[in-house]
Amino acid sequence: MEKMDRLWPGGWQFLFDDELFQPGTDSFLLGAFPKLKQGEKVCDLGAGTGLLGLLLLARQPAAHVTNVELQSAACCLAQRTAALNGLESSVTCVEGDLRDASLFAAGSFDLVICNPPYFAADTGAQAVSDARRAARSEVTCTLEDICCAAQRLLRWGGRLALVFRTERMAELMELCRRHGLEPKRLRLVQHTAQSAPSLLLLECRRGGKTGLAVEAPLIMTNEDGSPTEEVDAMYFRDKR
Amino acid sequence: MEKMDRLWPGGWQFLFDDELFQPGTDSFLLGAFPKLKQGEKVCDLGAGTGLLGLLLLARQPAAHVTNVELQSAACCLAQRTAALNGLESSVTCVEGDLRDASLFAAGSFDLVICNPPYFAADTGAQAVSDARRAARSEVTCTLEDICCAAQRLLRWGGRLALVFRTERMAELMELCRRHGLEPKRLRLVQHTAQSAPSLLLLECRRGGKTGLAVEAPLIMTNEDGSPTEEVDAMYFRDKR
Repeated sequence: MEKMDRLWPGGWQFLFDDELFQPGTDSFLLGAFPKLKQGEKVCDLGAGTGLLGLLLLARQPAAHVTNVELQSAACCLAQRTAALNGLESSVTCVEGDLRDASLFAAGSFDLVICNPPYFAADTGAQAVSDARRAARSEVTCTLEDICCAAQRLLRWGGRLALVFRTERMAELMELCRRHGLEPKRLRLVQHTAQSAPSLLLLECRRGGKTGLAVEAPLIMTNEDGSPTEEVDAMYFRDKR
Repeated sequence: MEKMDRLWPGGWQFLFDDELFQPGTDSFLLGAFPKLKQGEKVCDLGAGTGLLGLLLLARQPAAHVTNVELQSAACCLAQRTAALNGLESSVTCVEGDLRDASLFAAGSFDLVICNPPYFAADTGAQAVSDARRAARSEVTCTLEDICCAAQRLLRWGGRLALVFRTERMAELMELCRRHGLEPKRLRLVQHTAQSAPSLLLLECRRGGKTGLAVEAPLIMTNEDGSPTEEVDAMYFRDKR
């Protein structure tokens, strides 16, 4: 069912359909992660209904986001969301397959972002719809497809930013390096200061030199269970 | 100058020479990290004066440790330390080059441990002596040499355990995977719960399946600056 929500009280509206995509914490985490300068061109691979692009534009209004999405219905919602917020000149929605090398000229982007399927095909719990399955499991594209696409789409020195499960970190690092995308910044996401991390945020640089900055963990909740200041700010940006 | 210290009050004695090797926190961290069963055969690559093996034997007296060390003087101290503690039957010291495939039969060990040089040759600050330089920089062996040796020395299903700088984590994971050593457990070491990690502890399995368990961070100090209970126990094991 189609729904509407706001990024935060008074913030941009966004449309979604929970049969296609459920807005999750990982989108908010990734939206707050990459460095982003004025005028930079961003490509969101497998953009779904385009939430991630909105989060980036909220941080850096002078960027431009291109959403690439295979599913027509999701792509359509992303386009309507952009119109709803008067962001037609900042957001482009392209219905297409990220594996298709003819979509864009090589080296067209400064930043590629992606919230990839977390599970290899046929692993993990099964999703309720084909669309949700594609977002969750490597049905329509693998991690390697994403690395290939990022390598092709990024200019020399451009960055790839991902959110992913820590369980597949070694595989992710190897794939990135094999595709000329050097891991440069890593941040692990923990429920509490003492708990094991479950997610990671990674920024790679195309053609970058070896050397990874592992940052302080992103801690989601305080000891009393309340969200930490940092997480709170991701959800209620305009309050700051 | 040759010195003697004890692992902890009342614990085994160990000899070292700070021109050859300085006992450091990283040895204690690594000594406490790998899983270790009765009767397992352990090989310490670049063992220096053999501190790491002592720490492992303190946790699991029914293991056997083989120290491989290139420097004759360090190897000699490790042997004297073993004798001093009556550990001749639990410790073997081999003076040799870990790159030398003829030292041991392939697949001889259940666990390979290593505290490798942290810096690529010609990077990082310069050490005061040739011996200290070999421990600090990749002068006499590279990370890849260590992965090659571990791949050769470990039985199928055996483990490699390392301590390393987080800055080279991506490189390390790629090298391990390339040599059939699948990263299975990772623990980051942080000064405080809020600070960025500086060291990592990694356990890989020869022929292991993909899938990395990232554990809760190892936090060195409490907010008041005192050592955490976990770190305290590494230095004062017999008090527990």
